[in-house]
Amino acid sequence: MPVETIDRLAGLLDAEAARVTAEVDDFFTRLLPPPNDNRQRLYQAMSHAAIGGGKRLRPLLTVAASQLFAIARERALRVGCAIEAIHVYSLIHDDLPCMDDADLRRGKATIHKAYGEAEAVLAGDSLHALAFEILAHPATHEDPWVRSDLVLELARAAGPAGMAGGQMMDLVAEGQQLDLPSITRLQQLKTGALIEYAVEVACIMVKLPQEARTPYRGYARNIGLAFQIADDLIDHSGDESAAGKPTGKDAHAGKATFVSLLGEERARQQASFLVNQAVEHLASHGEEADLLRAIARFAIERDH
Amino acid sequence: MPVETIDRLAGLLDAEAARVTAEVDDFFTRLLPPPNDNRQRLYQAMSHAAIGGGKRLRPLLTVAASQLFAIARERALRVGCAIEAIHVYSLIHDDLPCMDDADLRRGKATIHKAYGEAEAVLAGDSLHALAFEILAHPATHEDPWVRSDLVLELARAAGPAGMAGGQMMDLVAEGQQLDLPSITRLQQLKTGALIEYAVEVACIMVKLPQEARTPYRGYARNIGLAFQIADDLIDHSGDESAAGKPTGKDAHAGKATFVSLLGEERARQQASFLVNQAVEHLASHGEEADLLRAIARFAIERDH
Repeated sequence: MPVETIDRLAGLLDAEAARVTAEVDDFFTRLLPPPNDNRQRLYQAMSHAAIGGGKRLRPLLTVAASQLFAIARERALRVGCAIEAIHVYSLIHDDLPCMDDADLRRGKATIHKAYGEAEAVLAGDSLHALAFEILAHPATHEDPWVRSDLVLELARAAGPAGMAGGQMMDLVAEGQQLDLPSITRLQQLKTGALIEYAVEVACIMVKLPQEARTPYRGYARNIGLAFQIADDLIDHSGDESAAGKPTGKDAHAGKATFVSLLGEERARQQASFLVNQAVEHLASHGEEADLLRAIARFAIERDH
Repeated sequence: MPVETIDRLAGLLDAEAARVTAEVDDFFTRLLPPPNDNRQRLYQAMSHAAIGGGKRLRPLLTVAASQLFAIARERALRVGCAIEAIHVYSLIHDDLPCMDDADLRRGKATIHKAYGEAEAVLAGDSLHALAFEILAHPATHEDPWVRSDLVLELARAAGPAGMAGGQMMDLVAEGQQLDLPSITRLQQLKTGALIEYAVEVACIMVKLPQEARTPYRGYARNIGLAFQIADDLIDHSGDESAAGKPTGKDAHAGKATFVSLLGEERARQQASFLVNQAVEHLASHGEEADLLRAIARFAIERDH
């Protein structure tokens, strides 16, 4: 790729990532004004978790995929924020003492550390419900078929056949030495399903026929796996400022990762191969796919 | 009410409650076949919680309200099971050590006791997502407006403006002496919102205009409050076999209840008054409202 193309894509990604980050914070700030009753602490915990943290990869992907079909940005953002609400709820619950027992997340105290464990359970549950409230609201899309489909596919991506099921696989994996197919399947459920959904929502919003969705699903699957390998590489490297949390925990728990199975160099090659594959899926598109290309090319080089 | 009417309503309730209980068990048995991978334990925990327990008050209410408008039973049952999935998820999370720390539920070990705490968090989260998957699926209703509305109102009833918010109020109440309006508001969010939704879904499925829904909302609000008072009376009486769990816990935690605020006799009178009001809301209906009448008349006399 010519240097000027690389620079242009990097600049595009930086600008869009900054814009989406601000827009997501603004959305949750408007969504979560603390009520004047005993639920204030709940809303504060939800805001602590949802506002001001993370690279907002999932809403960024939704905004980027929506550019393929010229979907209005406001619409893409609402859907992206619903996905982010699910992602944030899953982080809150995953950090609980009975799960990963984490003290730090995105460089801040985790919710159970800052607000208490019961509050963390309820803040997660509340964001979970809010995600579906956002999607089913007529402000998201005027076509009820689209709203209903958005809900159906998010429920599948978040539930036992997706994210929650993958989290269970991850729990069970602590006592086992998984092989590469098993780790790949675990990742596809635990983080891949929601990343794939973040791209697929654009297809749902324009009612793209199922058979036309194949390249976008391929793109999402490839980058989902590439992101996981990048995460494993950061965890392996011990760079806590890039990770925003303590590193080395998978190795400590004796868990197999892409890095422990492939070695550092082959893991890097695999991530790079997946990114190239992801970008190839966008070959039929022009400039409107540049943000998706930029996410694939550069997002594995940074924390997300 | 003549004795033969009382007997007829009691018989109707017994028959319908038994039928709905069997149908709900059957639904969840079909919904939750354990997959052949590391998620088996998750599905077992979900089945343990969702199958074979409770009086299924919420699906029963949905079936009963659906009879007002001759809605197909299969459709009512799917919606009722989605509501039950939300109810069951909330019980799993409420029982966690960081919340009520309960060992028994519906006469069985609670999920974290039987499967572990992380599994209980994930089983609750999974049932939460499944509820929305059931509602948004075309099998629930052929009209996407209806599906989208069912999702929107369930998300509101279950989230921070409903059940989860009420649960937070209940947590905060442990350190306070709430008065009657505050207890009423807490109950309306914590359990009332989902009970109200269980009746309102019938209005949503026939697209009843908002202004025509008032009597059904009134009915649901009255019985929701009556059920809570009945629960407080059972907890106060110390009858653990009726409660299906240890009793006296609210008094032990120093929490105000309807019984502690009103005294046993006035609490009974208030429940009875609310039931009469609930039944009056159905005055324009004939036999098609008998099951709703029977639920109001008899359900406060038993555990649910």
